Amino acid sequence: MIDLSNELAIGIDIGGTNTKYGLVNHRGEILEKGDIRTDVHENVESFIDAVYDVLSPIIEKHKGDGVVKGIGIGAPNGNYYTGTIDYAPNLTWQGIVPLVKLVTEKFHLPAALTNDANAAAVGEMNYGAARGMRDFIMITLGTGVGSGIVANGQLIYGHDGFAGELGHTVIRPGGRKHWSTNIDGSLEAYCSATGIVLTAKELLQQSKEESSLRQVNPDELSSKIIYECAVKGDPIAKEVYRFTGQILGEALANFVMFSSPEAIILFGGVIKAGDLIMLPTREHMEKNLLPIFQDKVKLIFSELKEADAAILGASALVWDLRE
Amino acid sequence: MIDLSNELAIGIDIGGTNTKYGLVNHRGEILEKGDIRTDVHENVESFIDAVYDVLSPIIEKHKGDGVVKGIGIGAPNGNYYTGTIDYAPNLTWQGIVPLVKLVTEKFHLPAALTNDANAAAVGEMNYGAARGMRDFIMITLGTGVGSGIVANGQLIYGHDGFAGELGHTVIRPGGRKHWSTNIDGSLEAYCSATGIVLTAKELLQQSKEESSLRQVNPDELSSKIIYECAVKGDPIAKEVYRFTGQILGEALANFVMFSSPEAIILFGGVIKAGDLIMLPTREHMEKNLLPIFQDKVKLIFSELKEADAAILGASALVWDLRE
Repeated sequence: MIDLSNELAIGIDIGGTNTKYGLVNHRGEILEKGDIRTDVHENVESFIDAVYDVLSPIIEKHKGDGVVKGIGIGAPNGNYYTGTIDYAPNLTWQGIVPLVKLVTEKFHLPAALTNDANAAAVGEMNYGAARGMRDFIMITLGTGVGSGIVANGQLIYGHDGFAGELGHTVIRPGGRKHWSTNIDGSLEAYCSATGIVLTAKELLQQSKEESSLRQVNPDELSSKIIYECAVKGDPIAKEVYRFTGQILGEALANFVMFSSPEAIILFGGVIKAGDLIMLPTREHMEKNLLPIFQDKVKLIFSELKEADAAILGASALVWDLRE
Repeated sequence: MIDLSNELAIGIDIGGTNTKYGLVNHRGEILEKGDIRTDVHENVESFIDAVYDVLSPIIEKHKGDGVVKGIGIGAPNGNYYTGTIDYAPNLTWQGIVPLVKLVTEKFHLPAALTNDANAAAVGEMNYGAARGMRDFIMITLGTGVGSGIVANGQLIYGHDGFAGELGHTVIRPGGRKHWSTNIDGSLEAYCSATGIVLTAKELLQQSKEESSLRQVNPDELSSKIIYECAVKGDPIAKEVYRFTGQILGEALANFVMFSSPEAIILFGGVIKAGDLIMLPTREHMEKNLLPIFQDKVKLIFSELKEADAAILGASALVWDLRE
C-alpha cells in the first residue's frame, strides 16, 4: 500500500486578466494560494517564468508536508488530450499554445490541462457536491456559460478533447444572436450574466411598465443590480430572472435526456438569485422531461467556495495523472 | 489465453408486434435467425416460453460450433442496470417486467438488456461502422427517433440506465406537440417517419403550390411516398425533406457540442432519402457549431443490414457480460 495522504497538487487557473494558483492536499485544503496578472505577459514563456517564480518558493517551503505530484491547469480552450490551449479568444497568446509541454519542462513535474468548466466538474467530484457520483453535469453560469459532463465516473472529453460546450447549444432556434460566436439562440446568449442584462434591456424597451431599472444608466446595468431590484419586488427585474430560469430549465431537460445524470451542479454568479431563477428552472426542466426522468434529477449548488473553486478544480486533475 | 473465437451469442429484439432472434458469432455472422409474434402473449412468462421453444433446438443444433455465452436483449424501455422493461407503451405487459431475471431462470444463461437504440450502437461498435471508435452517437430514424451514445469507449447509460433519449430533446420550443409524449417541439415530432408525414400535411395546407402529394389519400401518405415524389422533383415533397434535414442538423449540432463524437451514425428508413435529407442536415449542423467543431464530425450510415441490425445489436451486449 502506498500512502497517498501526503501527496500535494498544484492548481493553476488561467483567466484572461488574472491567473490564480494554489497548493492543495487530497482533502481539498488549500495550503497556499495567490494570483498574478495574465495579460501583462506578451508571450507564454514569460508567463510561465512568472508562475515559476511565485510557485517555487511555495514548493520549497512545503517540502516537509508532502510530495508535489503534479500540476493541474484550467484554461479557456484547454485541451486535455493535446495539452494545448487552442485559439483562446480571451488570451493574449494566439494560435496553439503547447502549455503542458512548457510547464513540464520548466517545473520538471507532470501536468494536465483542461478548460475551466471541466476542471470545476473534476473539483466538485473530488472535494465538493459530486463526491461519490458517477453521473452528473456541472454548469457554470457567470460571464459565460460553461459545462463539464461526467458519465460512468469519467469526464467526457470527446474524441478531440473539446466535449461539453453546453453553453453554445441552441435552445431558441432563430433567437438572440450571440455577441461573439454569432450562433442564434444559444444558452449562453440568454443565461450568462451578459445575457441577463440583454434580456432586461429588451424587456424595458418592449414594456411600458414602471421599473426601478429605468433609473439605472443602461451602460451600468448588471445582473447584480437586476437581482437586487428583483428582490425588492420590481416586476421587470423579476420577469428577467423568471425568463432566464425558463430558458435554463428547457436546456437542462435536453441535457438530462442526453446523459441522465444523478444531479446537475450549478455554480457561478447567476445562481445567487436563488429561487428567483431556480423555481422557474426546475418547473420548465420537469415540464420538458419524459416521465421516466421526472422528479429524479437533483438540482444542487456547488459546495466549493467561489474564490477557491477554480484552483481546487485545476488541482484535482492531478489525482488522475498517470505516472 | 482463452480462445474466444468459438463463443456464440443469442440476440433477441423485442418489438410491439414481432420479436426477432438469432444466434451470432464474434464476427457478427448470424448462424440462425427467426421471429415470433410478441403481441399474442398476454403475459411475459408465456412469451419467454415461446422464445425458449424456438431457441433451444437452435442451441442444441449448434453445440459443435461453439459455446453460447449469453443472451442479449433489445427492448423498448429496457433498463441495463435493473434488467427490467419499465412501462413500455408499445408492449402488452404493463408495469415493470423483470425480463433478465426470467430469461436467466429459463435458459440458465446470463442475459443483458437495454433499449433498441442502445443495442444498435453496441452492434455498430462491434460489427459495423463504429468499429474502433471510442466516441460516437448512433441515431435511429424510423417510426420513432432513438439514440445510443458512446463516450470513452463505453455506452452512456446514465445514473438510472435511461440515458440517450435524444429523440425527445426539444429542438423547436413551443413547436409541434408530440402525439404521445405531449412534449412541444421534440426532435421525434419532426424527424421520425410520422413527423415527416405531419410536415407534408402542414405544407400542403399552408401552400397552394401544385404537388403530386395532393393526389394521395391523406390517410395513406407515408414518408416513402413523400420520398418517391421528392425524387421525381415535386417541390413540396422536396421541401419536406429539406426542412426535416434542417431540424435534424440543428439537433445534431447540439449533440456534437455535448459529447464531441468522432462520428454520428445514422440508421433507419428515413435516411433512405439520401442527399435529399443529408445535404440540409450537414449544412445546418455545421452552421450551428462552434468553429472548433466544424468540418470534423463524420456523418455516416450504418453498415449493418437493416433486417439483421436489431439481432446483431442485441447479441453484441453479450460480449461485455461479466462472468
